[in-house]
Amino acid sequence: MKIRVIIPNASVAFLRTQIEERRWAAGHGVEVSTVCLPSGPVSLESGVDDALVAVPLLQEARKAERDGCAAIVIDCAADPSVRAVREYVSIPVVSAGEAAFQYALGLGDRFSVVTVLPNTARLIEERLRMYGLLLRVASVRYADVPVLGLEDMALAGERILEQARRAIDTDGADVIVLGCTGMSPVARRLQENLEVPVVDPAMAALTLAESLVRMGLTHSRRCYPVPPAKEVVGEPQLKWEY
Amino acid sequence: MKIRVIIPNASVAFLRTQIEERRWAAGHGVEVSTVCLPSGPVSLESGVDDALVAVPLLQEARKAERDGCAAIVIDCAADPSVRAVREYVSIPVVSAGEAAFQYALGLGDRFSVVTVLPNTARLIEERLRMYGLLLRVASVRYADVPVLGLEDMALAGERILEQARRAIDTDGADVIVLGCTGMSPVARRLQENLEVPVVDPAMAALTLAESLVRMGLTHSRRCYPVPPAKEVVGEPQLKWEY
Amino acid sequence: MKIRVIIPNASVAFLRTQIEERRWAAGHGVEVSTVCLPSGPVSLESGVDDALVAVPLLQEARKAERDGCAAIVIDCAADPSVRAVREYVSIPVVSAGEAAFQYALGLGDRFSVVTVLPNTARLIEERLRMYGLLLRVASVRYADVPVLGLEDMALAGERILEQARRAIDTDGADVIVLGCTGMSPVARRLQENLEVPVVDPAMAALTLAESLVRMGLTHSRRCYPVPPAKEVVGEPQLKWEY
Amino acid sequence: MKIRVIIPNASVAFLRTQIEERRWAAGHGVEVSTVCLPSGPVSLESGVDDALVAVPLLQEARKAERDGCAAIVIDCAADPSVRAVREYVSIPVVSAGEAAFQYALGLGDRFSVVTVLPNTARLIEERLRMYGLLLRVASVRYADVPVLGLEDMALAGERILEQARRAIDTDGADVIVLGCTGMSPVARRLQENLEVPVVDPAMAALTLAESLVRMGLTHSRRCYPVPPAKEVVGEPQLKWEY
Amino acid sequence: MKIRVIIPNASVAFLRTQIEERRWAAGHGVEVSTVCLPSGPVSLESGVDDALVAVPLLQEARKAERDGCAAIVIDCAADPSVRAVREYVSIPVVSAGEAAFQYALGLGDRFSVVTVLPNTARLIEERLRMYGLLLRVASVRYADVPVLGLEDMALAGERILEQARRAIDTDGADVIVLGCTGMSPVARRLQENLEVPVVDPAMAALTLAESLVRMGLTHSRRCYPVPPAKEVVGEPQLKWEY
Amino acid sequence: MKIRVIIPNASVAFLRTQIEERRWAAGHGVEVSTVCLPSGPVSLESGVDDALVAVPLLQEARKAERDGCAAIVIDCAADPSVRAVREYVSIPVVSAGEAAFQYALGLGDRFSVVTVLPNTARLIEERLRMYGLLLRVASVRYADVPVLGLEDMALAGERILEQARRAIDTDGADVIVLGCTGMSPVARRLQENLEVPVVDPAMAALTLAESLVRMGLTHSRRCYPVPPAKEVVGEPQLKWEY
Repeated sequence: MKIRVIIPNASVAFLRTQIEERRWAAGHGVEVSTVCLPSGPVSLESGVDDALVAVPLLQEARKAERDGCAAIVIDCAADPSVRAVREYVSIPVVSAGEAAFQYALGLGDRFSVVTVLPNTARLIEERLRMYGLLLRVASVRYADVPVLGLEDMALAGERILEQARRAIDTDGADVIVLGCTGMSPVARRLQENLEVPVVDPAMAALTLAESLVRMGLTHSRRCYPVPPAKEVVGEPQLKWEY
Repeated sequence: MKIRVIIPNASVAFLRTQIEERRWAAGHGVEVSTVCLPSGPVSLESGVDDALVAVPLLQEARKAERDGCAAIVIDCAADPSVRAVREYVSIPVVSAGEAAFQYALGLGDRFSVVTVLPNTARLIEERLRMYGLLLRVASVRYADVPVLGLEDMALAGERILEQARRAIDTDGADVIVLGCTGMSPVARRLQENLEVPVVDPAMAALTLAESLVRMGLTHSRRCYPVPPAKEVVGEPQLKWEY
Repeated sequence: MKIRVIIPNASVAFLRTQIEERRWAAGHGVEVSTVCLPSGPVSLESGVDDALVAVPLLQEARKAERDGCAAIVIDCAADPSVRAVREYVSIPVVSAGEAAFQYALGLGDRFSVVTVLPNTARLIEERLRMYGLLLRVASVRYADVPVLGLEDMALAGERILEQARRAIDTDGADVIVLGCTGMSPVARRLQENLEVPVVDPAMAALTLAESLVRMGLTHSRRCYPVPPAKEVVGEPQLKWEY
Repeated sequence: MKIRVIIPNASVAFLRTQIEERRWAAGHGVEVSTVCLPSGPVSLESGVDDALVAVPLLQEARKAERDGCAAIVIDCAADPSVRAVREYVSIPVVSAGEAAFQYALGLGDRFSVVTVLPNTARLIEERLRMYGLLLRVASVRYADVPVLGLEDMALAGERILEQARRAIDTDGADVIVLGCTGMSPVARRLQENLEVPVVDPAMAALTLAESLVRMGLTHSRRCYPVPPAKEVVGEPQLKWEY
Repeated sequence: MKIRVIIPNASVAFLRTQIEERRWAAGHGVEVSTVCLPSGPVSLESGVDDALVAVPLLQEARKAERDGCAAIVIDCAADPSVRAVREYVSIPVVSAGEAAFQYALGLGDRFSVVTVLPNTARLIEERLRMYGLLLRVASVRYADVPVLGLEDMALAGERILEQARRAIDTDGADVIVLGCTGMSPVARRLQENLEVPVVDPAMAALTLAESLVRMGLTHSRRCYPVPPAKEVVGEPQLKWEY
Repeated sequence: MKIRVIIPNASVAFLRTQIEERRWAAGHGVEVSTVCLPSGPVSLESGVDDALVAVPLLQEARKAERDGCAAIVIDCAADPSVRAVREYVSIPVVSAGEAAFQYALGLGDRFSVVTVLPNTARLIEERLRMYGLLLRVASVRYADVPVLGLEDMALAGERILEQARRAIDTDGADVIVLGCTGMSPVARRLQENLEVPVVDPAMAALTLAESLVRMGLTHSRRCYPVPPAKEVVGEPQLKWEY
């Protein structure tokens, strides 16, 4: 089973730190190939970033399907362009935020998300409302560390831990969902320091993708119909094909 | 007061049919300039289209702000990239779907949306859930006419009327919101044939934009913070500036 | 376009302070006439006040319609007798609280209302639940200043600012909605001191009324059917006509 | 224990048909006195009627409290002016619609209300949304019989039965709540013809009022604070006292 | 009218403290017989306890019906096995938590529950979500006193009061619902020390049971169908009969 | 990794038909042992059945934990005693209904459940409300075939297909969740005949259990605290230990 993990940003440096991480997380018999985008912002933290990655993300998704992948992971907790990608390909499309929320639902009554920046927190809140899950959310918090600042594990870990602690003690969270796939290394340390389950969205997404393939499930075409074909004007969209 | 209406597709032909429409709808002392995108799909009907218009839409929005416009209208009932645009500029950003829903709330207990295609209906449903308005929605229906098929007013009008009728009689709608800004001409005919108010999203958005300017209101920076600046790799995003 | 602003209390002194305010707020070509009630309490702050103004408010609304007004504004953020007035007349009826909430929805994810007294706060909360908007509300707070105490701008402004500050910092409000139409003068000062949009309900209502007239929209008769005619016993209702 | 049942309309003829009904429904040791209003419409079916009864209803409520009654029943399923009355008196105030909904919650997952006219159905729907109970409501239907038409039991019963049948078979109701206190006689017949519980709001309200008195409970002053005293202009409100 | 109060635990000592309490609470002409279970845990505080009492509770309920009781009270605020018991017998089944919530709805906008232990709080929260009442709940708190620790009234009362105080001041509760039927004695003292209504679930359940009998109402068989008969393997379920 | 699948009924015959099914569904390196209960009803279809299986289910769960299993599957779509089992053991506890709902959330906007009998449908609806997922549910339907009637695949398959069809066409389901783990064989046939994803709860639960173990996640002790130890009276609970 081949699974393509698409990191929806254009940072090759960031990509390098994630490749082993994803390979390690893959199940038996799963071949994971992790890519980032050829163009776009070097991290996804805001609605603007979300907009900027849309086209290259669709292109990478189509490429993954053509490469014979069994499933696609959108490796970002802000779930960029999920609807578009599901319309555009027929193999299962799993996104890291949504996957983490799905697992969190079975672990406690209420989860909190701890993400990187204010913009990201707002994006995630919007998704949670869109998913109709607000009754199960204690809070969405941010550590005020940019994605690329997560490399400084000592500082980032401290700040994330502090927000997770408040989510539990003040907001009543039963479960912590990390709100950025770049937080995987922190996840383990956090789990050792917190008495509640900590869901790593990168691992959640990969696991969910494998599971769907094994169960023979993909997204509903009633909900994500094939998009109507049409003329697309200009570059680089000119070569676009639905 | 200058207002820029951005039609988020790249159809110059469609644009031509709308320019007079928008000028006619503008209030006293309002100078409306209506543009479409330099690149992108010729209509916005699906999640994929939504993704394709994101970058040129942001660019047009920034251009409008630099041109000294007092407000921006995103002339599409599917509300593409609204969060991104609001992060990206500081002048009020009104989108046609959201504007129409805001007005509809004051006209009856429950509204239905009648849009063009299944993909569009799903996009709009998702937005309504995201806006937290489901308690006030009777249904989202589609006439199964593509945006560019709306030019055949006779046929399109018939189909839209049929769905609006069902929305009222079967789903209990008090108000009909048209789910495509290309339906403006149909709006008047529909209103003559229906006993409930019919909200035209194009007119709603323009009116709301003017109103916000007059009231001195723009979107909250707490909800839509200025996005963090960062490197953007590749063309055409290379020249991007936050 | 003639718009009648009905202040649903019987204080001529209060009326005098508002007339210029409303005229100033009116758009081009709009003739605003502002009236208060011939009888009733001198301010509307509680459910009892709400009950006391119902009959004279209906009478003034009918009068406005007969005077050829294009729309009616109920100039109170507690939205008294809105359903009754909409049943009773056919021209658009806009109420200040509901109008302000409608505009606030487009400015941020969550708004807070800051009103005058505990009774008023409860009235407004009840309306927000009735409107199905709770998912978008951060809090309803009160400054503990009666309507007629708003004349002491210095003190009132201080207290309102304090509650608005808490709404933003503690409750997470993106937008402040003033919960009393007597707060208009404070609105401007508040806006200067707060980093989020401040919605003035009096201005919101007038602007919305004009907008509905311009768009040719009025409330749905399916939602607000003409009330059944019947005998009314006693004075002054004896002369009542449906 | 003295309980005052206030029928919020001014029809002495209607009152006469209800007095025995209420006395029969009262528990051991309960002295029920049933009154109607000295002025107002002869039935309450619309928002306008709701407005018209507000002042005389408040006056009767105050009178009941002064007469030493232990509780007040507002004998109408549309729950007119409940907040105002609860602010105005300190003894428990029970209203027929709300009481019936409270009992219905324990009898099944979802209840439907069958009331008299379209206007009444909308009033009741609004209340249900205000009470936050929509998740438990299957539908609100109306028999299209005015209150005073309920005297023709044969016809009215037939129509109410038809709507109740549809509520069960089509809308999935587990319980039927009658949406008018004038339907008490029909209630028994309906119960014989339906396999689900039928809640009579008049009986529900009286029973609830007794129960609250026995349990020593009355409404919360935090939710219904004593209204601020103030000048009231004009007749008959001139003699008003808070 | 005979009403059987079933305390769903197996503590004869606890039972003895409650018998007089319940008899005192019964209305005129009501014969209350209070029993506990022949087997099971000595108090119900957790999901495990909830599971342990299920079978003996069903057996006692069937026995009550055979003894000619008019209604059954499940004397526990965690509402154990309510659906099962309602399927299993045809007389009205009232449970203390649900009954208290039903009464609380009419006393204020939002109620808080104060119960004994963390496990119990979670059970009750789960029920409140299941009942669809979350919009009306301010909080669920616990005093950290086990059921059998309630006998030390001085200490228990202090802790319950403290949590009730916080529910009012911090969470915005208008009404306090006691979350354990063993708190009846504390109820009166609490009521003297709090300015909001305090609902005693034991009294609420008994009162509601009587009321349903008087109104001739029992639970809907559409919602609680008679369970399909089937073989049951093993002891003591062997002798089970549906 | 050892996973214990507990079928919460006492039918050895039914168990035999499931053992191979579960083994086949297990992932690489997963050792599945499937057991049924030593006592209890031969199928779980109602609230009464739910109550009857509670104690033996807890005992089997404890046994699984002592046997060194890494996770427990409660192999029933009605999710019996999930809270109790999670309090009682520390290894992950996955239940078939909840697991299926979690996967369904990522496959479309709205899912429908098709289960066996009316009682079962009501149990499942109650769970869905408890899980706060109603916004994502199109309907809960039943095929009117008892669990043990599922062996007649031809008839059962026909009826389940018919209800699934209606769920899609009438209720707007994007995804079908089978509401009984005995439906696994039907699942494949159904999937061939329906254009939307069909989620098999037995397979979903097993897959989710494996996934949680791999991710090192188990339920939150904040949500499911260890239950307080206490005396348990009578047989067989006498030997109970918390």
